[in-house]
Amino acid sequence: MNAARGRLFIVGLGPGAPGYLTEDARVALETAQDLIGYAPYLARLPKRAGQTRIGSDNRVELERAREALRRTEEGRTVALVSGGDPGVFAMAAAVFEAIETGDPAWRGLDVEVLPGVSAMLAAAARLGAPLGGDFCAISLSDNLKPWETIATRLDCAARGDFVIALYNPASRARPDRINDAFAILHATLAPQTLVVFAKSIGRVEEEIIVADLASADLSKVDMGTLVFIGAKGTRRIEREGARPFVYTSRRVS
Amino acid sequence: MNAARGRLFIVGLGPGAPGYLTEDARVALETAQDLIGYAPYLARLPKRAGQTRIGSDNRVELERAREALRRTEEGRTVALVSGGDPGVFAMAAAVFEAIETGDPAWRGLDVEVLPGVSAMLAAAARLGAPLGGDFCAISLSDNLKPWETIATRLDCAARGDFVIALYNPASRARPDRINDAFAILHATLAPQTLVVFAKSIGRVEEEIIVADLASADLSKVDMGTLVFIGAKGTRRIEREGARPFVYTSRRVS
Repeated sequence: MNAARGRLFIVGLGPGAPGYLTEDARVALETAQDLIGYAPYLARLPKRAGQTRIGSDNRVELERAREALRRTEEGRTVALVSGGDPGVFAMAAAVFEAIETGDPAWRGLDVEVLPGVSAMLAAAARLGAPLGGDFCAISLSDNLKPWETIATRLDCAARGDFVIALYNPASRARPDRINDAFAILHATLAPQTLVVFAKSIGRVEEEIIVADLASADLSKVDMGTLVFIGAKGTRRIEREGARPFVYTSRRVS
Repeated sequence: MNAARGRLFIVGLGPGAPGYLTEDARVALETAQDLIGYAPYLARLPKRAGQTRIGSDNRVELERAREALRRTEEGRTVALVSGGDPGVFAMAAAVFEAIETGDPAWRGLDVEVLPGVSAMLAAAARLGAPLGGDFCAISLSDNLKPWETIATRLDCAARGDFVIALYNPASRARPDRINDAFAILHATLAPQTLVVFAKSIGRVEEEIIVADLASADLSKVDMGTLVFIGAKGTRRIEREGARPFVYTSRRVS
């Protein structure tokens, strides 16, 4: 073990554009000796002399977390980067799983999560205020949890009249996951329930589709889409020559 | 109507400390001619020559939103500030409600929501990764929605095994709201369910209490507290001489 005391920052980059970055995240990215992350996220960051970059593939979160912890233990200042917020379907949970199941010395490391603007909050801001009421976030990925759990949660969220944000609505292995999810939602929600597909938020190719549960074209949903399902109080404000605003009323009668 | 085209930025300050501010929010706060918001939020911001400040009391969100829209219509560049993220139990929904119910010309105004780090994401980051699984956010305030709606949502969230973030768990008028909420949760959740009280996150007086459903001392909950209720997969990682980390496993078996 090195004499220097290492630090691990788990840094949220926000979605896409650099304007979403917080001041604390910016400073951590500048001062880190090692940058670790999914390669496309690292590619967003300006290169700095003397800074090591360890890019990795998707789906190896736990291995990436362990690499960050090993380097921190060696006394290095490490920034492990995450898109959006690290605590929302991203790297932070993987790091704490690695700490819990790994070298007991890791519990003593200096680990700090620097939050960011999650994809959900950024997409909501582009739309108006769809999360203006009570809401929930559900990942449709069944890599680490059974589909039955997801199905139960969708059903509970619909019965509770929550605004729902669906992460990971499609994958190469399971492109039709979103169809199964919508079948569950249809059982409880009215056909006119507002549905929004928010694609590539904060990037040049950004696209937003506002529809309803009955007519939404699910073939438009891909891996980079965040799907919002409105509550009863979610409504659209029509505008001339512009996309409607979408917001959820704070009032429930 | 003024010849200049007004702009309205609905700006999320994040919770407390300036390090949470995003780059886009910082620029908007610097370039705005008028700053409008709840007076304690405005007091956080550095004074700038030539910038007008209109501070207001809590609980007048709709009036504050209309003031911002009127000034925007006059051609001014306005920053309406919100703590945390403006879209999460904050100012954005009030602005869109004011637009929907107000002067039709307001629909044509240039309105942009600049998202921020919500209290929930900031508190989660300080704890570890409690939102590592599917989660929901519920405001316990019954000013604008009936308590029955809140009760149903708490019940659905518990049945769905969501991690739950409770906003506005107490108020001067209803200090015992949190007791009613816990009574509902007790009906479904195990006594050892993790509970966290995150108080004044990002401020000097920050305090975090980690407990469980059976033994949590509800008298510690005040207006500035965010309450987390864990899911089955939420656990604590004990550490020597430090507060435990709290995280929710990405795995559900």
